[in-house]
Amino acid sequence: MSWEDNVRRVIPYVPGEQPKIDKIIKLNTNENPYPPAPGVLKALEELKEGYDNLRKYPAPACDALEEALSEYYNLPREQLFTGVGSDDVLSMAFLAFFKGEKPVLFPDITYSFYDVWAEVYGIPYKTVPLNENFEINGEDYDIPNGGIVIANPNAPTGIAKSKEWMEQFITRHRDVVVIVDEAYVDFGGESCISLIDKYENLLVTQTFSKSRSLAGLRIGMAFGSKKIIRYLKDVKFSVNSYTMNTPSLVLGSASLKDDEYFREKVSAVIKTREWTKDELKKLGFIMTESKTNFLFASHPERKAEEIMNKLREQGIIVRHFKKPRIDNYLRISIGTDEEMQEMVRVLRTFL
Amino acid sequence: MSWEDNVRRVIPYVPGEQPKIDKIIKLNTNENPYPPAPGVLKALEELKEGYDNLRKYPAPACDALEEALSEYYNLPREQLFTGVGSDDVLSMAFLAFFKGEKPVLFPDITYSFYDVWAEVYGIPYKTVPLNENFEINGEDYDIPNGGIVIANPNAPTGIAKSKEWMEQFITRHRDVVVIVDEAYVDFGGESCISLIDKYENLLVTQTFSKSRSLAGLRIGMAFGSKKIIRYLKDVKFSVNSYTMNTPSLVLGSASLKDDEYFREKVSAVIKTREWTKDELKKLGFIMTESKTNFLFASHPERKAEEIMNKLREQGIIVRHFKKPRIDNYLRISIGTDEEMQEMVRVLRTFL
Repeated sequence: MSWEDNVRRVIPYVPGEQPKIDKIIKLNTNENPYPPAPGVLKALEELKEGYDNLRKYPAPACDALEEALSEYYNLPREQLFTGVGSDDVLSMAFLAFFKGEKPVLFPDITYSFYDVWAEVYGIPYKTVPLNENFEINGEDYDIPNGGIVIANPNAPTGIAKSKEWMEQFITRHRDVVVIVDEAYVDFGGESCISLIDKYENLLVTQTFSKSRSLAGLRIGMAFGSKKIIRYLKDVKFSVNSYTMNTPSLVLGSASLKDDEYFREKVSAVIKTREWTKDELKKLGFIMTESKTNFLFASHPERKAEEIMNKLREQGIIVRHFKKPRIDNYLRISIGTDEEMQEMVRVLRTFL
Repeated sequence: MSWEDNVRRVIPYVPGEQPKIDKIIKLNTNENPYPPAPGVLKALEELKEGYDNLRKYPAPACDALEEALSEYYNLPREQLFTGVGSDDVLSMAFLAFFKGEKPVLFPDITYSFYDVWAEVYGIPYKTVPLNENFEINGEDYDIPNGGIVIANPNAPTGIAKSKEWMEQFITRHRDVVVIVDEAYVDFGGESCISLIDKYENLLVTQTFSKSRSLAGLRIGMAFGSKKIIRYLKDVKFSVNSYTMNTPSLVLGSASLKDDEYFREKVSAVIKTREWTKDELKKLGFIMTESKTNFLFASHPERKAEEIMNKLREQGIIVRHFKKPRIDNYLRISIGTDEEMQEMVRVLRTFL
């Protein structure tokens, strides 16, 4: 026998590249082009003043952050959960809620971590194909299942379902946990948070990484009934007592205080997205109706990979997924106006 | 059917209390009484200057931190792994390496998270009793098993095995992964890091939370053969691409630069531990030979719980485990000289 016999062999998720060159226009990981709220800078000063405090463990219940979230979303703390990015939150939710034998369902084209988590935790799963317009067909999910995960807006397609549609969908699946991954919802989607008191089995996840410009802190959160959050916290406390470090708690809660700044920057990203979309249309691109901070674009005359490489030569990085059905699409994160103008200029020369 | 049928039900680990009162003498979670290295304060200033950078994802491979660790321990990065505290590192290691059907072995008295991780991941396990002096008897582990976990020094007993003993032990268990949890090794134990090139199946874990005064950052690390680290990284990247946030990478790597400060503070803790031990002996306490930053103490005439409560009345918090064999012991973290003098004074009045 060898020690390797007991090893869990997996094919890990590959994150978008983080190039070490500064001059690049980085449109490949859906980061926000604007700085975090000014309150974060002030909180960094506080962190510096109280730096001796770093010798102590953070509050295991994430008090500062949960209290700020509770105030911001007007929800009791018992309906809130925080983790190291929504990846941590979703991974914990997979571990906590999908222990059954029937397959967990999610779209064939969606966030590529879902099947990776299912694999690593040994959860049976089945992907449900989106239709030819990359839309979810709700009836396709009326099959025996052990849970459902829907990204809304979906990634990398950017397409959103209305809250009304989501509620009808959830109504048909009361006997399993339904996770709605709202990583991009602030850029034009409709949140399902207001449904958590009505549907005990609903878990909504969000993140500070996109709309709050804090990908570097790794903060994600979940909203749900008191019962579902309790189960999730029990599993979380069985894995790591202190997942959120002190800087995350201090800076994350500070970032929630400046709502005007938040709304202003989100609007700016949306405006730039619509401008970019119009320009890309003029260049012949076909796009979905994105409600996110990225565009999902294809060109009828040029291969996506070719366009990606041409952009790269000019120092502009976008994301391409070598996957069935979407390998002729590019996922283009929305940067500043200047960055998008430069991208459009480069594309214009090339096409 | 109910959605709750598929829920993973667990009894979570309960971390030591983090009281919100400042005036308390906190000797219950083995934190370091001294501030982090001065370089950390400087790095906080850098973090503030580059705060716009927080909008970007951290380097997924944890470059800054891994490079600093690589230099400090003189090991290639392929033999290093980092995580959100050694809890995250150990939890990942349980998930990655204990997929077999034979039970994973660890002492009956040890870090109380091991059985919690085994439970949450559905790993079969068996605890092996320490002898009457709380010592590990190596031969007791010569039974069929799917892996072994040894905390060295052990917690909450504080007792350490020599590197020579550990090597002989590992030699007898080449067919499974052996994890040596060295959370407390810097306070007088002998590390097994120098054995990782000889034993491919050995994984050594350590933490920044104790000797480096950075519990608030949540940084843990593992050392092993290139092969074992590769397997661990594959599982980690299947759970969360970016576990370590930007402050952890920036501040953590800075803390490794000032080795003189590190050695000075570790020596101070050891000196205070020995002083406290002598004083407690004079008061009639029985103690193990601790090689950690805590003492494991029992009094023949007074119940541990009673002593804990008396200390608490005077604003001094120590840890008591309501567990078989050790429920008449207290785990007392080593604070500053002044804090320990105060504790001894209170105990003297009471006993």
